[in-house]
Amino acid sequence: MANPIYVIGHQQPDTDTICSALAYARLKQAQGADVVPARAGAVNPETRFVLDRWDVETPTLIDDAAGDRLILVDHNEYSQAVSGARGAEIVEVVDHHRIGDVQTSDPIFFRTEPVGSTATILTHLYDEAGETIETETAGLLLSGLLSDTVVLRSPTTTETDRSIVERLAETADVDHEEYGKELLQQKSKLGEKQPREMVLSDFKEFEFGSNQVGIGQIETVEQEVVLDQRDAILAAMDEIVSERDFDVLLLLVTDVLGEESIALIAGSHTEAVEDALDTSFTDRGAFLPGVMSRKKQVVPPLEKTFG
Amino acid sequence: MANPIYVIGHQQPDTDTICSALAYARLKQAQGADVVPARAGAVNPETRFVLDRWDVETPTLIDDAAGDRLILVDHNEYSQAVSGARGAEIVEVVDHHRIGDVQTSDPIFFRTEPVGSTATILTHLYDEAGETIETETAGLLLSGLLSDTVVLRSPTTTETDRSIVERLAETADVDHEEYGKELLQQKSKLGEKQPREMVLSDFKEFEFGSNQVGIGQIETVEQEVVLDQRDAILAAMDEIVSERDFDVLLLLVTDVLGEESIALIAGSHTEAVEDALDTSFTDRGAFLPGVMSRKKQVVPPLEKTFG
Ligand SMILES: [Mn+2]
Ligand SMILES: [Mn+2]
Repeated sequence: MANPIYVIGHQQPDTDTICSALAYARLKQAQGADVVPARAGAVNPETRFVLDRWDVETPTLIDDAAGDRLILVDHNEYSQAVSGARGAEIVEVVDHHRIGDVQTSDPIFFRTEPVGSTATILTHLYDEAGETIETETAGLLLSGLLSDTVVLRSPTTTETDRSIVERLAETADVDHEEYGKELLQQKSKLGEKQPREMVLSDFKEFEFGSNQVGIGQIETVEQEVVLDQRDAILAAMDEIVSERDFDVLLLLVTDVLGEESIALIAGSHTEAVEDALDTSFTDRGAFLPGVMSRKKQVVPPLEKTFG
Repeated sequence: MANPIYVIGHQQPDTDTICSALAYARLKQAQGADVVPARAGAVNPETRFVLDRWDVETPTLIDDAAGDRLILVDHNEYSQAVSGARGAEIVEVVDHHRIGDVQTSDPIFFRTEPVGSTATILTHLYDEAGETIETETAGLLLSGLLSDTVVLRSPTTTETDRSIVERLAETADVDHEEYGKELLQQKSKLGEKQPREMVLSDFKEFEFGSNQVGIGQIETVEQEVVLDQRDAILAAMDEIVSERDFDVLLLLVTDVLGEESIALIAGSHTEAVEDALDTSFTDRGAFLPGVMSRKKQVVPPLEKTFG
């Protein structure tokens, strides 16, 4: 018998990635497909809270996907995918990020939309397939959407996201603001984390032209708790740069209520990053008012400068 | 004022490409967007027949799209796009081919489905937007779908295509088999064509690894009329190979009723093509029983061999 198809999100999985893998696997299974929800790394505390809250099993951990068939959710570039993805067959993509470097030999189902979360697009796919969204699944989709949009506060939030949140919250039988606050509190549990973990826990890698660029993000309601450890974090960033040969390493420390970020920088291209983000770094830190979205406000200008 | 956004299909436009540009531009316009239907080359006789039949204006010809904003329909790789596309901003993609090499800085709407035509996907998009498909637009979409699927005979045809054809034919108030035969007759008007035109009139270029591969296709009910000119066609193919530096040049002469093709070959990799297509060439010609679809039956094995 053939191996199943894995539905899998990006490395350093966040709540949208895990919940999307689970929700899309359920939809495909309801349609009779032999698919298994999977993940490319450890589940973070916010996602753990969500899985416990909705009583859903943790997806299967995949170490090496070479030779497997994959449905990619919540990402579509190899630098962010599970190890071995370049040697896997990509059979579908559902995502809300920029178009990356996946190429295929055959026509496939590939769907990206510029909305706040992959969960938003999956809600459309349930509707288009005429499949009912059960309570648990609504809880998962709602969690992905609220987490990615910082409870509808991120500039990535669209009208579509807002109307879908209402509907999912009703099906899941929760108040979305209240439930969203519970999620934010989980996200903010940074106290016990080591500096290195802070940089890498929500971390994405990009190839812009010939430059390796890493961008971590910490979304928090306690920005000062993070910045208290600034020197240790910068030291951890320098370590990561030399271990993994990054040209640029950025960490966005985002105040989700104040809707602003402090960027910390490592690597060797500070001036180019200053140009790209229209800011200036003092002691390797820069204030970015209004910046909440890595994807929408940081990746595009960096890609234009370095790509 | 900003330039409009062009909705544009591939070079050597076929009926699905032109009709998709027109139909998607109409949908976007109905939603208030400033878009203009466009094309990357001359309209073929079949498409001319369709535009006259439904009394629709020919899309604007674009010579160089550098600096423009583009919505790509019916293709998603630069080697098939209008000149200058690499210097354009791709703002949306709707297609039914393999995933190519388009990358973007920002998240965009990107939608491919493994169905028989781009027109099929556009019918879904009308439905999802809650927009009515008017008679003329139904005629355009039906033409794209019937042309690409050879009136539902190509192996690329899906159940979705079949049910959409019924519905579009009803709205357009035509019998799809009868109307399809009229289209096939237009496609078959090869009598007056020069050998070079035969090779290039429905022609696609691919980069497989470091190999430039060109694949032309003639879909006809009169295969023998084409093969009568075999020597002249092979000479034209040799000319094209040396002018444009192709590593492999194939011409599929497809008998749409017999559901089989004769492939003619030029370039320097006959053995590899024999392996890929599991056939053998005699006097530069090979019989391919059951082969009707370049996209589904010829591109994937070549890409696997050369890619
Ligand atoms: Mn996401
Ligand atoms: Mn097509």
